[in-house]
Amino acid sequence: MTENPLHKFFQAKSMAIFGASVSKDKPGFVIAENFINNFNGKTILVNPKGGEILGHPVFKSLEEVEDTVEAAIIIVPAKYVPAAMEDCAKKGVKSVTIISGGFKEIGEEGIKLQQRIDTIAKEHDIRIIGPNCIGLFYPKRGLDMVFLPEEKLKRPTEGGISILSQSGAFGSAFLDVMGSLGKGNYLSKFISFGNASDINEADILEYFGEDPETKVILIYLEGFKNGRKFIETARKVSLKKPIIAIKANRTEAGAQAVASHTASLAANDDVTDALFKEAGIIRAYTWDDLFDCMKAFNSTLLPNGNQVIVITDGGGAGVMASDAIGMLGLELADLSPEIEKKMKEDLPPYFSVANPIDLTGSATAKEYLYALEQTINDPAVDAITYIIIPTPPAINVKELMDGLKPYAKTINKTVTFCAIGGEEAAYIREELEQMNFPFFPTPARAVYAIDKLAEYADYLRTHGQKLPVIREIPK
Amino acid sequence: MTENPLHKFFQAKSMAIFGASVSKDKPGFVIAENFINNFNGKTILVNPKGGEILGHPVFKSLEEVEDTVEAAIIIVPAKYVPAAMEDCAKKGVKSVTIISGGFKEIGEEGIKLQQRIDTIAKEHDIRIIGPNCIGLFYPKRGLDMVFLPEEKLKRPTEGGISILSQSGAFGSAFLDVMGSLGKGNYLSKFISFGNASDINEADILEYFGEDPETKVILIYLEGFKNGRKFIETARKVSLKKPIIAIKANRTEAGAQAVASHTASLAANDDVTDALFKEAGIIRAYTWDDLFDCMKAFNSTLLPNGNQVIVITDGGGAGVMASDAIGMLGLELADLSPEIEKKMKEDLPPYFSVANPIDLTGSATAKEYLYALEQTINDPAVDAITYIIIPTPPAINVKELMDGLKPYAKTINKTVTFCAIGGEEAAYIREELEQMNFPFFPTPARAVYAIDKLAEYADYLRTHGQKLPVIREIPK
Repeated sequence: MTENPLHKFFQAKSMAIFGASVSKDKPGFVIAENFINNFNGKTILVNPKGGEILGHPVFKSLEEVEDTVEAAIIIVPAKYVPAAMEDCAKKGVKSVTIISGGFKEIGEEGIKLQQRIDTIAKEHDIRIIGPNCIGLFYPKRGLDMVFLPEEKLKRPTEGGISILSQSGAFGSAFLDVMGSLGKGNYLSKFISFGNASDINEADILEYFGEDPETKVILIYLEGFKNGRKFIETARKVSLKKPIIAIKANRTEAGAQAVASHTASLAANDDVTDALFKEAGIIRAYTWDDLFDCMKAFNSTLLPNGNQVIVITDGGGAGVMASDAIGMLGLELADLSPEIEKKMKEDLPPYFSVANPIDLTGSATAKEYLYALEQTINDPAVDAITYIIIPTPPAINVKELMDGLKPYAKTINKTVTFCAIGGEEAAYIREELEQMNFPFFPTPARAVYAIDKLAEYADYLRTHGQKLPVIREIPK
Repeated sequence: MTENPLHKFFQAKSMAIFGASVSKDKPGFVIAENFINNFNGKTILVNPKGGEILGHPVFKSLEEVEDTVEAAIIIVPAKYVPAAMEDCAKKGVKSVTIISGGFKEIGEEGIKLQQRIDTIAKEHDIRIIGPNCIGLFYPKRGLDMVFLPEEKLKRPTEGGISILSQSGAFGSAFLDVMGSLGKGNYLSKFISFGNASDINEADILEYFGEDPETKVILIYLEGFKNGRKFIETARKVSLKKPIIAIKANRTEAGAQAVASHTASLAANDDVTDALFKEAGIIRAYTWDDLFDCMKAFNSTLLPNGNQVIVITDGGGAGVMASDAIGMLGLELADLSPEIEKKMKEDLPPYFSVANPIDLTGSATAKEYLYALEQTINDPAVDAITYIIIPTPPAINVKELMDGLKPYAKTINKTVTFCAIGGEEAAYIREELEQMNFPFFPTPARAVYAIDKLAEYADYLRTHGQKLPVIREIPK
């Protein structure tokens, strides 16, 4: 099997930075600083002006460098990119990420420039990511091409999620939001690949598919460079790990927006739907969808079926969740008779032991924990939507959160959580994220997440696969 | 015209509280405290035990009270409610809110009890809100029956939004979330009406329709007590002010959940859709929808048409917004030729002056403000979706927010805002809320909000009405 070209990009032991800069507000400074501070390989700074950055020498060209250089980042203005490529070629650098914009996306002149760099690359067997992209971020190795400082863009903590984004802005905003989540296991690898003059979405998907560190794959695409290979690859990868994808640019209006952006053609959206479904790709339609799927797949288990129980202390929230269950084609589970009987005996008579289980405005933390324990043990229940309205006077939310902590280690069933309200809901969210449980801001979204998990579990069963355990037990 | 019975509930000059309690964790204490501290009328505490609460005397029955009593709240256990009603009847109290649960919603026994209180009410011309509800909250008068202390449920600031909720839990959670919004104009009046043994959704809608303080009406319903009157009332009210409604209990699963909750029948959901549309009610389907509509109608202007422009610095966000515009049936506005020409001259050549206007990763606060000014002045644009990805290095978000402040006073066009990211996005949200501009967490939701505004504006135009100005200029 030939090695995927991405391997050399992520595992390069040395990295040259063309366009490393002394000006603190320039991308070339931020990237140089990222590498100097964090990269667990050799950083080589390159700029025709020479000099030094943060005490490290700046080479005028790679000719001055004695050691081998495995990979390079180019962030010089577009017109200087071919010269940097030539420099890489002479030194034998084989993996180049071109961050610079000013190519195909700006029209005629840029198209010519992009063709020039493609020619140089082909002549010298150089593989390219970009141009017009953010490039790579791989926290485990401190490989961080994100040209925004930490104050501007928070880096997510390490975990098993890998992201490929055609749009740099979408990708970086998503990273920033992930970075703002609490403690937890989040990012393995990130690639924004921009114009994809060489390496494209299909190559990256294949790499993430093979990568043992990647447990969940998130994708933002506006069009395909190699749609056939992408779908064929997805078909294989989705049997091993979930792929959740936004394919934007769904409408004529979207296509108009793309024309001036990453320049992809709008395919018929229904065809995309059908192809994704057949290839086992979970399709997200909006930012919220993608974000909710990320939380669900990363933080809970795949369900064995579509029987869902709702636990709540708010009748209205229970109705909204039940509506969502009905609309999405999931089913309201019936409790097993013996468990229903036991719960009716153990709980106050004005509680509703049905589905939803309504603990009412008299709910206590103890009763919430009791209801969870019973439904986890009920084989008739495949998944639980656990909705906490923290307002009732008798609920001690700290007691409830402390009581949930042991479940973070032992849970063996799909559970999605929701809390609605102000400060106490924010506290619940924070605590649950620390337990690596998936939190959603509304009942409908907590149910939607189960639907997507069930969709994927069903796909795997249909294809004779066992359900993988993705969720990591928090320390 | 006969006076709406709700008037006496909200404007009562004296309020008796049956079940006022000395135990700090009891609803009867919280409500007593709310009234003692905030009510701008006379508070009369009633409890057969007598004694004193926070230095105020507790009467054993209303017979002991010399002054007239206009209204009452009952929070005693269900079986004692008829006695409290009799006490009210003797004293001539005509407006009674029964918070207590344990009636129709618990089955046979409760149904009988509810019939008993109905009989007493009819005999003595007493009007009832409830039972099994949260009752009223009217911050302007300090009339606060919400039986949860401020630490448990944050009270929203005063404004023009009035809410009617069949579910107490839904209503109180919504209040709590509103209370967690920044400074701004939010709540006029809130009613949770529970079992609606007497006053129902149609009466309340009629009252909010006539109430000059109410500018926007939000509704959460699971079923109708008087569907015909509700729709007829809505038809009149919607010509004057927007009505945004969730009608939950849409599916069989939802109906099963309701059975044990407020006990309403699930009507055919398509019929509800058609009736709402015809009556000018904006239908929300989820919590997020309702919340987003609240923000939009309360904080921006109704659009004169459906031509939307997107301003952004992130190509991907622009595509997502454009997709949403296409999916919802809005249209991407074409800039007027002279404005397009001017912008192309004034802005850097690598910016995309089209729709979306993409200020790219080089965007500055100045350019963002410039783009807003130009599109506000363009008669070809009916509404603006303004998406800020704060990550690009050159954007100073404080400068941008300061530059937006004058627009908070002068804005004469529909604008919805979105910022995506971590801490800086949170700062933008807070600042925009202070300016009473509507903020949304994703591009799709910012566009959805415009769609709902356009839907209502279109309804008004079709019915020969002028577009009302709801948005208040912040101080």
